[in-house]
Amino acid sequence: MPLLVVGSVAFDDVRTPHGEAREILGGAATYFSVAASWFAPVRVVAVVGEDFDDSHMQVFQDRGIDTTGLERAPGRTFRWHGEYTGDMNEARTLETQLNVFETFAPKIPPAYLASEYVFLGNIDPVLQLHVRQQLPQARLVALDSMNYWITGKLDDLKKALATVHALVINEGEAKMLSGHSNLRRAAAATRELGPQILVIKRGEYGATLFTPDAVFSAPGFPLETVRDPTGAGDTFAGGFMGHLTRTGDLSEANLRRAVIYGSVMASFAVEEFGLAGLLRLSAPQITDRFLEFKKLTHFDV
Amino acid sequence: MPLLVVGSVAFDDVRTPHGEAREILGGAATYFSVAASWFAPVRVVAVVGEDFDDSHMQVFQDRGIDTTGLERAPGRTFRWHGEYTGDMNEARTLETQLNVFETFAPKIPPAYLASEYVFLGNIDPVLQLHVRQQLPQARLVALDSMNYWITGKLDDLKKALATVHALVINEGEAKMLSGHSNLRRAAAATRELGPQILVIKRGEYGATLFTPDAVFSAPGFPLETVRDPTGAGDTFAGGFMGHLTRTGDLSEANLRRAVIYGSVMASFAVEEFGLAGLLRLSAPQITDRFLEFKKLTHFDV
Repeated sequence: MPLLVVGSVAFDDVRTPHGEAREILGGAATYFSVAASWFAPVRVVAVVGEDFDDSHMQVFQDRGIDTTGLERAPGRTFRWHGEYTGDMNEARTLETQLNVFETFAPKIPPAYLASEYVFLGNIDPVLQLHVRQQLPQARLVALDSMNYWITGKLDDLKKALATVHALVINEGEAKMLSGHSNLRRAAAATRELGPQILVIKRGEYGATLFTPDAVFSAPGFPLETVRDPTGAGDTFAGGFMGHLTRTGDLSEANLRRAVIYGSVMASFAVEEFGLAGLLRLSAPQITDRFLEFKKLTHFDV
Repeated sequence: MPLLVVGSVAFDDVRTPHGEAREILGGAATYFSVAASWFAPVRVVAVVGEDFDDSHMQVFQDRGIDTTGLERAPGRTFRWHGEYTGDMNEARTLETQLNVFETFAPKIPPAYLASEYVFLGNIDPVLQLHVRQQLPQARLVALDSMNYWITGKLDDLKKALATVHALVINEGEAKMLSGHSNLRRAAAATRELGPQILVIKRGEYGATLFTPDAVFSAPGFPLETVRDPTGAGDTFAGGFMGHLTRTGDLSEANLRRAVIYGSVMASFAVEEFGLAGLLRLSAPQITDRFLEFKKLTHFDV
């Protein structure tokens, strides 16, 4: 069963204390797709410009990602320029050029309309809702959003949230969305907006899952070297949704494993600039780090 | 086997978004002692002033804490006035009056000199080392410190660190002490200073244990209401050391459980102002929350 993602493809310029990379392939849908492709077949809906060439397309195709929904539009691809300093917990955006992304209107290819697993990446909530409404058969729809939409299009975001099963969102944004600075209260208020499954991403501190039945907290993997945090959240979502798509199991126990797989993939991503950490992987490495997470968190009662 | 703690006793004025408390009993040695008293007999070495009356003494005695080492000096008890705002992750100190604490020279009663489990609370590292040298039979000596000593008495702190088995310290201070902003590198560099067991406290994000054999991360307990974070770190240390003293087991597996007991105790402390959350407890509540931590972190591989 394939996993559909709608979101952005971008070229990023990134500077961190460990170095600099220019014009590297990025964007939420890209990180998500590449991460998820280690678990399940992925279909991507996004828009790219005329500067997106065969070598970029090859990155998706080498990972077996279905690019039927990758629309090419006149103009340049979305560009983001950011830097990380100090403990690298937050990116500073130096420049954003929306380019072809500014008028992005996701077109879902007919073959994708029966998708059962869907991730609505961080785009205008009006578009998220529009995509959601075209996918009545979806068994699990997850959504991401950000401060820009929470402050600018809250009503639309709430409409979209009311139609999805899961929300995967940063801690600061969950607090902003809910108006609660306490995590547990923020989670309860957020789940009342619709999504019964809520994953709050906490950067290097890990992620916390709230379901109707329980709370589950996973730490971040303590890495010796974090070179580039760009895309970590989308990579997390890719591992999370990828594992759920692969298994088709939405039980509480499996949602917990999905959070760990999300954390595993994010940990690989941040070890290298751009997609490098996700592209050089092997399936046994993913399993090994999953088991390392078990060792990292296990205690006997 | 009793557990010896050397540190501060204070009266605190605390303001948080949930209210205000004045002249409440606090201080590192107090929080530590009360938390640890749920696990093992505790001996406290500290100094108090003439304003420390029978009702304050009663708090220690009701918990069975040995106060032979609680010295009374002319003058007023150490006072701290602080407030927490927003997400309450950091205290803002409004006023500190050292009072009798300014000239504190810990005197270890003869009966305490054979103590095997020792916690050197956050005091001048020269005093920490002096106490340490009087306790040659100690099986486990843990130490806490803070930015003030790291910047002001680094050489003395390093001398003290070279003599202890364990360091229990805040994340920001571990990074400051080691000069590394990456947690894993900070931990490795810190352990090279002496303590083979390192616990890095991360506030609401939990705690991470570094030992010669492994890394263990525990999340914070997601509480619905955090009224007053004062003393959380010392309470954590009390639960951690209390469990190790009770069991006498310094294995990796038991150190992990000790981290959870520390987290359990800290979670109770912050639910109420001052010591109230630690005083109203029962042993079954502690066990219940320990098991809740298991549910919070468990996943099947």
